[in-house]
Amino acid sequence: MINAVGRDIPEEVLKATGKDIFRGTFAKEGYEYKKAAPTVRAYMDPNKSKRVDSIHDVLVKCGIKDGMTLSFHHHFREGDYVVNMVMEEVHKMGIKDITICASSMGKAHDPIVPMIEDGTVTGIQSSGVRGKIGEAISAGKLQNLAIMRSHGGRVRAIESGEVHIDIAFIGAPTCDEYGNMRANGGKSDCGVLSYAMADAKYADKVVAITDCLVPSPNLPASISQVDVDYVVVVDEIGNPAKIATGAAKPTTDVRKILMADYCTEFVINTPYFKDGFTYQTGVGGASIASTISLGKIMKERGIKMKFGVGGIAGPMCKLLEEGLIETLVDTQDFDTIAIESIKNNPRHFEISASEYANPFNKGAYVNQLDFVILAALEVDVNFNCNVVVGSDGVVTGAQGGHPDTAAGAKCTIVIAPLLQGRIPAICSQVTTVTTPGETVDVVITDYGIAINPARQDLIEAMKGVKLPFCTIEELRDKAYSIVGEPDPVQFDDQVVGIIEARDGSVIDVVRKVKEYEFK
Amino acid sequence: MINAVGRDIPEEVLKATGKDIFRGTFAKEGYEYKKAAPTVRAYMDPNKSKRVDSIHDVLVKCGIKDGMTLSFHHHFREGDYVVNMVMEEVHKMGIKDITICASSMGKAHDPIVPMIEDGTVTGIQSSGVRGKIGEAISAGKLQNLAIMRSHGGRVRAIESGEVHIDIAFIGAPTCDEYGNMRANGGKSDCGVLSYAMADAKYADKVVAITDCLVPSPNLPASISQVDVDYVVVVDEIGNPAKIATGAAKPTTDVRKILMADYCTEFVINTPYFKDGFTYQTGVGGASIASTISLGKIMKERGIKMKFGVGGIAGPMCKLLEEGLIETLVDTQDFDTIAIESIKNNPRHFEISASEYANPFNKGAYVNQLDFVILAALEVDVNFNCNVVVGSDGVVTGAQGGHPDTAAGAKCTIVIAPLLQGRIPAICSQVTTVTTPGETVDVVITDYGIAINPARQDLIEAMKGVKLPFCTIEELRDKAYSIVGEPDPVQFDDQVVGIIEARDGSVIDVVRKVKEYEFK
Repeated sequence: MINAVGRDIPEEVLKATGKDIFRGTFAKEGYEYKKAAPTVRAYMDPNKSKRVDSIHDVLVKCGIKDGMTLSFHHHFREGDYVVNMVMEEVHKMGIKDITICASSMGKAHDPIVPMIEDGTVTGIQSSGVRGKIGEAISAGKLQNLAIMRSHGGRVRAIESGEVHIDIAFIGAPTCDEYGNMRANGGKSDCGVLSYAMADAKYADKVVAITDCLVPSPNLPASISQVDVDYVVVVDEIGNPAKIATGAAKPTTDVRKILMADYCTEFVINTPYFKDGFTYQTGVGGASIASTISLGKIMKERGIKMKFGVGGIAGPMCKLLEEGLIETLVDTQDFDTIAIESIKNNPRHFEISASEYANPFNKGAYVNQLDFVILAALEVDVNFNCNVVVGSDGVVTGAQGGHPDTAAGAKCTIVIAPLLQGRIPAICSQVTTVTTPGETVDVVITDYGIAINPARQDLIEAMKGVKLPFCTIEELRDKAYSIVGEPDPVQFDDQVVGIIEARDGSVIDVVRKVKEYEFK
Repeated sequence: MINAVGRDIPEEVLKATGKDIFRGTFAKEGYEYKKAAPTVRAYMDPNKSKRVDSIHDVLVKCGIKDGMTLSFHHHFREGDYVVNMVMEEVHKMGIKDITICASSMGKAHDPIVPMIEDGTVTGIQSSGVRGKIGEAISAGKLQNLAIMRSHGGRVRAIESGEVHIDIAFIGAPTCDEYGNMRANGGKSDCGVLSYAMADAKYADKVVAITDCLVPSPNLPASISQVDVDYVVVVDEIGNPAKIATGAAKPTTDVRKILMADYCTEFVINTPYFKDGFTYQTGVGGASIASTISLGKIMKERGIKMKFGVGGIAGPMCKLLEEGLIETLVDTQDFDTIAIESIKNNPRHFEISASEYANPFNKGAYVNQLDFVILAALEVDVNFNCNVVVGSDGVVTGAQGGHPDTAAGAKCTIVIAPLLQGRIPAICSQVTTVTTPGETVDVVITDYGIAINPARQDLIEAMKGVKLPFCTIEELRDKAYSIVGEPDPVQFDDQVVGIIEARDGSVIDVVRKVKEYEFK
């Protein structure tokens, strides 16, 4: 069946998953449903302890068995030890057919690949995957369909019962004997535990894994004792050096600085740029440069940002400190500055992933965004974006909050260099659609800026603004004129994964890659 | 059927409610159940507003109809306007058969009585009731059985699905357009919104009612936007003078000071009184006097309290300020000092009622209590306590956290003057059992102190301690020798309410009072 972004979703995928095709970003506005709920055990005895000596013992206590779904968060980013630590023990116990439901996975989890190959792990549900797991999925090695969900989509899937977590393993920089977890105060601080909050509320069993046991009560707790069954203390939950990389340095790449300047010029000429505006940006070089230059103009004009949302890096914290941002609502910390900021700045708040982006709750922060500045691997002439699958067809990125913020923001800006090496980033058809073009308003490249024709109001607002505007087709043609139109990636028929839209429908599928065959 | 505290629970009550008899405080340890969940509506459209102009309009939007259950919190105490405001509108609309599920109700809600009489309100579920509603229940005017639950028991009932809330009305001292509610920063501050948190998570529809709309995001939010359907702004949600009464003054009542001294002497001679102990107390004159004298000894001996829990009043905040308490975990504020403390002291935290006392979550704070100092209307020779029904048989009090803390604390101390006027507080049989004697360790009266014989360890610990120890029977006999043994209250056969144990079983029933008949 052809969905709302023109992708043909095979019937057998719809049948196998029970899912509908994507019918448009707001097709499910007002959708009514009964929330899911975990099966829990009352803990009344004041003399009982939650402490368990080892991962092995806690797996036994949780009743680990074939076919279960285990969940993890990705706040430790490429420094995470928790997934491998738990899965190695699961593997040793000979458990099979496990689905990993993680908020995201990266190269740190390459050791999972042999477990995919031997059937220990048969399902992966994640924002995305990088590294060898992506290659394994694209090579058709995972037994079940991989499911790629946005950050908001993941919470929706959990809260609606689409995925049921049997055991949640939550790495916690600090935890007390009773299970109160915090992201800070330990030796592997990660700033916030936003992505783990839904897991704690909806998993049947919840295990805290910490390398820093602290006296109770560990408050304010990101995850509360009332949702935690067991506490396991281990030597190390992550590599602090890889959790919190140093401050993102301002880019010196001329191309990125150019795009950042275009972005800032665009933002300040929209009607939304006024005192009390709201904003989210990423950590790419251009995004960061744009945040810095925007800050200067805000200062000059006396305009303050009401709140900044989402994954937070140093430059946003600096604006908060300078009083140019009133409040930061944070779901992930990208660097040491952000982690220190949330520890010390009382206007820097942790929120849950549901509060951030869940499309099926009663109103997420993304709904209140004026601007979001995003990146993309590819953008096509219908403004559809791809952030998960490389132009070589291999799974290599993550949805993150891309489709969530694009849907919510009044002005969604995607920054992408026209060419990524020899690959055109602006193309006729993205390899895989992750974010529907109807929610993308502007594409900024180093060769020109295209406004989505659906946004005549923005086209109007830009009249007289000195920026190199053109059509998206002109951008595509320019790219093709420089590097040529690439041959389409050659895929096998086998579907290996689905890209879920934030509402749970299928926006695209990922197919097995096959060796390139010359015609 | 006779339950574990010897009360005969009529079969028809068990049949009508589907409940079991009380089988002991820890009978349901490890009980496994699937949590309840609300039916909610996705709110994806960034342009939608949650603002509704009036209580009437919001009732219409929520689909108010006969037979619904509406919930309220009691943080405004005797200053609450919200219950009456909503119910007056419900009444005007001619809606019938409403169950009010409130965390507690008081004299402020006397205007509900005519609605009980005309069938607008047919069910009341509350921690307890004071004033005319209690009289109406005891007179048999309420169509359905009134259900009295402890604070922990209420959350259990909501989270287990025993009661399903159709619409929760949450009075909020401050709220933003998107529904983020806080207990402070407005004109009717109440310190915390702990009792409303479960309502927000488990009700199908959630309505914020505020008299102080603030810019978003109103953080840190006690109740999050993601759970709120509508926001209604009204002139006044409560009478600040009655919400936060002035500081509780140290008592000058010699009897109370005597009991306070006994209590302190007892506490400091138990093995639990050591650095890092945990403690909860109430706001009665003796409790407060005891807290103050305990503070002096803590200072002298260099002993600190790890945390104080529950409803908080000035004296506990003073100890926090002096560094004698490390942390306060707060579910209710009894005076202005407590409200100011939670606003300003970073070691004073708001927790949910579930975190406080829910017996069916994965571990509440009450489980970690060393001491709780409680009051009671009556205590019997089996150490059973009554805090809900007056010795005249009329419903006049509330369970509060009484049975929750008694079950959790290592040392549960009940302070009661031997005589309440001409009524013996220590008696052969309490009028109604609310807290089982197996969880009550010590009873302190102005005439002597009785330790529960089940606690031989405490009896041992008190050897050599100069306090007027005696048996509970001796206390009862002393009381009867002074005022005589009162004739039992004469009840009608009709059961008008049940006292729920914290695990949801029936610990006692409340019967219709009849006019006293001379033999």
